[in-house]
Amino acid sequence: MADHFEKANELAEALQASEEFTTLKQLHEDIESDEVAKKMLDNFRSVQMELQQKQMQGEQISEEEVQQAQKQFELVQQHEQIMKLMEEEQRMSQLVGEINKIITSPLEVLYGTEEQNG
Amino acid sequence: MADHFEKANELAEALQASEEFTTLKQLHEDIESDEVAKKMLDNFRSVQMELQQKQMQGEQISEEEVQQAQKQFELVQQHEQIMKLMEEEQRMSQLVGEINKIITSPLEVLYGTEEQNG
Ligand SMILES: [Ca+2]
Ligand SMILES: [Ca+2]
Repeated sequence: MADHFEKANELAEALQASEEFTTLKQLHEDIESDEVAKKMLDNFRSVQMELQQKQMQGEQISEEEVQQAQKQFELVQQHEQIMKLMEEEQRMSQLVGEINKIITSPLEVLYGTEEQNG
Repeated sequence: MADHFEKANELAEALQASEEFTTLKQLHEDIESDEVAKKMLDNFRSVQMELQQKQMQGEQISEEEVQQAQKQFELVQQHEQIMKLMEEEQRMSQLVGEINKIITSPLEVLYGTEEQNG
């Protein structure tokens, strides 16, 4: 196996062992085992995804849809475990972003703003 | 430094030392030092980017713009070094994609299709 794939596997293992991942996994499992919380989160996510898809396709979003999304968001905001999960997801997303920035830094040398000298 | 950042740095080093990166860097430098090739590639990329932005914003792309892009593509297709560069960029892009898939595989356990057992 090429060295970079070996290092990628080691990184995946380190990520899996991280406090960030462990916390996220626990919260995820807590909510999966709580029917009410799970349904609330699923509803929220499907409304979010629907709106995102419409936005991406350049479709108009109605006042009613905005209100529905707002209502769903107010509901999940009152649920402490769901809010914790979303915070941890945000944290994990930032972590993966930072890791990606480190990994692709060699490519920035090629595609950065600095002039390359022939 | 957290273990995952250490591993990410090691992975970046491995990527930088890879044959894929070395080849890509060399081709990039060859074209940077060739004024005609550089201009041809820059023109091609700016036309591509313009069309992509229009597509993303849901704007209509005119017949003339499609023809212009086609013409630019035919030009770069005749340039062996540019074609090689684009092939190597494609290869690097696939490699980074594979690496990302490995790294984020722990998260798939949480967000995959498999049912979690409370
Ligand atoms: Ca150079
Ligand atoms: Ca579970």
